[in-house]
Amino acid sequence: MSHSILTLTTDFGLDDHYVGAMKGVVLGICPDARIVDISHGVRPFEISEGAYTIAQAWRCFPAGTVHVVVVDPGVGSSRRPILVEAGRHYFIAPDNGVLAMVYLKETAKVRLISNESLYRRPVSRTFHGRDIFAPVAAHLAAGLSPAHIGDPIDNYLKPDFVKPHRAGKRTWIGQILKIDHFGNIVTNFHVEDYGDLALRNFQMELGPVTVTALGNNYAERAPGELFVILGSSGYYEVSLSQGSAAGKIKCETGTAIELLVW
Amino acid sequence: MSHSILTLTTDFGLDDHYVGAMKGVVLGICPDARIVDISHGVRPFEISEGAYTIAQAWRCFPAGTVHVVVVDPGVGSSRRPILVEAGRHYFIAPDNGVLAMVYLKETAKVRLISNESLYRRPVSRTFHGRDIFAPVAAHLAAGLSPAHIGDPIDNYLKPDFVKPHRAGKRTWIGQILKIDHFGNIVTNFHVEDYGDLALRNFQMELGPVTVTALGNNYAERAPGELFVILGSSGYYEVSLSQGSAAGKIKCETGTAIELLVW
Amino acid sequence: MSHSILTLTTDFGLDDHYVGAMKGVVLGICPDARIVDISHGVRPFEISEGAYTIAQAWRCFPAGTVHVVVVDPGVGSSRRPILVEAGRHYFIAPDNGVLAMVYLKETAKVRLISNESLYRRPVSRTFHGRDIFAPVAAHLAAGLSPAHIGDPIDNYLKPDFVKPHRAGKRTWIGQILKIDHFGNIVTNFHVEDYGDLALRNFQMELGPVTVTALGNNYAERAPGELFVILGSSGYYEVSLSQGSAAGKIKCETGTAIELLVW
Repeated sequence: MSHSILTLTTDFGLDDHYVGAMKGVVLGICPDARIVDISHGVRPFEISEGAYTIAQAWRCFPAGTVHVVVVDPGVGSSRRPILVEAGRHYFIAPDNGVLAMVYLKETAKVRLISNESLYRRPVSRTFHGRDIFAPVAAHLAAGLSPAHIGDPIDNYLKPDFVKPHRAGKRTWIGQILKIDHFGNIVTNFHVEDYGDLALRNFQMELGPVTVTALGNNYAERAPGELFVILGSSGYYEVSLSQGSAAGKIKCETGTAIELLVW
Repeated sequence: MSHSILTLTTDFGLDDHYVGAMKGVVLGICPDARIVDISHGVRPFEISEGAYTIAQAWRCFPAGTVHVVVVDPGVGSSRRPILVEAGRHYFIAPDNGVLAMVYLKETAKVRLISNESLYRRPVSRTFHGRDIFAPVAAHLAAGLSPAHIGDPIDNYLKPDFVKPHRAGKRTWIGQILKIDHFGNIVTNFHVEDYGDLALRNFQMELGPVTVTALGNNYAERAPGELFVILGSSGYYEVSLSQGSAAGKIKCETGTAIELLVW
Repeated sequence: MSHSILTLTTDFGLDDHYVGAMKGVVLGICPDARIVDISHGVRPFEISEGAYTIAQAWRCFPAGTVHVVVVDPGVGSSRRPILVEAGRHYFIAPDNGVLAMVYLKETAKVRLISNESLYRRPVSRTFHGRDIFAPVAAHLAAGLSPAHIGDPIDNYLKPDFVKPHRAGKRTWIGQILKIDHFGNIVTNFHVEDYGDLALRNFQMELGPVTVTALGNNYAERAPGELFVILGSSGYYEVSLSQGSAAGKIKCETGTAIELLVW
């Protein structure tokens, strides 16, 4: 297992110097690190969006990759930094639930990062991405054993992510997990739980809008027609051919969705 | 020729996990790949803007570079994936015209990507960037011969890009190819076709606005004054010193431009 | 000292092909360069914002790093390209003050870039990032001696950046240096000049708004409450817990701030 790929997922945006500063710190410690941006466009402070983003991306990387995830409204407070080993990957983040979509699905060993000798000094109050997460991750990528970073803990945050709940014999209430760059509406109805909708009858309701069409791809549907499609992450999505479904429906992350299946 | 530089040009934006996922797939197959982003800000579904973007950038890279271009409104349909060899570079994209500004200018060999054993499994319906284009490109960057990817074809898409047409003895009608980050208006009047405007008399009309000044650089013109300048891609541009020409004129890609030269 | 890390800071944005083109040029000359983006989101033509951005990031990188900074409203005019050696780092930029926050704080040797044989040909009028700054930086990263790039000069631009001035016995007038992605308002009051505000009484006035609270971290403050915090760059910032201070106060870069300390 190579340790030298290091990914970054943050809510820092790309306009400031923050992401560049983190990369400089990484390269100073681990000159051979291959640094890959997953996203710096997580909406500020949105822990669940960060959790979704890393959960969709990490399996695409080789075993041994170190993933740094910094969506951290509690920076500088007593919230703890953690290292998670899961699926032969490493994850470094604040203990605020941002890694929970990883460790709720995988057997994980979670460690408290306690070896402060690895930190960049002085540690600022507002930028632990640069001063704690980046240097610890870089040491790990350079080959430091997880045991030298901190001891295992059990009392890390285990938030419940909202899963659809049953509201009737044929009815489930879910919600919008994410709206992507194209305006596709990613629901929290997963193919593993609801099966292949092509083999059943269904309708999906977002407020006053009812969607009953199922698409195999974007191109086969008429422009302007809303349809449901199985997305690349295994969740069903509501989409529009060559247009923004979210723009048409005027909805947002967290909006309730009702699914009828029969 | 090194095969190990791999560029990415998409309309995926940078806020989602999509680009990061593609990079993970590439590094899993070709750990030595040098991945370079050209742009992920092509406007969604705008094939001609993607075509322009890759056409302006590829010659800056060394021979042997593999360029992946995914602007792909037909993802999941019967549109085909292709590999283009041109100018000692490689290009991987959907066969929808997004590479046409490359192969209309260069002798090219175009192959149908048919070796499905190179794909990531399962292949999703909506994200061939991750499941087809990235892995095939990574195998190529790792040294796989193009002949193992697919056979040459002739019936790939050869769209006509809009070129200016003559509307009178001294008059041509062109259009806006692109508006860049600074608000520079890139026209489709190329210096190879219209020569050095500094040696002639000209006026350029964009709707009610007429531009007759020619600039050698931005700094020599007065703030607020519109002028024509020969852009870095060989097309004439309409610009404003320290301001956005497109913001002042209120125009957009595709808007007609009339050029009088005498 | 490794020369092979090369950073980029520009106002080019990420939607066009410009940044990708620069990277292609670099890799053609220095195939081993590790290219790191610091930011391409400096606001167009804002030299002082570029100066701030590189000044905050460069110390995070290892000695020997080559930093390319292109915020260049005077591109194509007689403004000169320079190479600055400071703090065992290299900086390449137009001589317009964009490096001044580096060389005002460090002993620096400044050279005029005069070896035109290093340029990419033909040199365009509008894109010296691609044709001058990238290739010269790449040659430097590949090991070329600074002495082969140009001779030292003394008459480079030494702009005065606005520092707070004293307006009364206990009163200083400063200004907003930068508003970051989160809406934190970075002032130009530096901890080195004003000491630890936790040990004193103070109030900070931005127009009609007075801030008197000092925070140790974001999480300890109530949502909606404005407070001052020592930022990661050593400047005091005005912030809001889980919100945008700049969005609440409606201010912008350059807005005056009054600090009373007693």
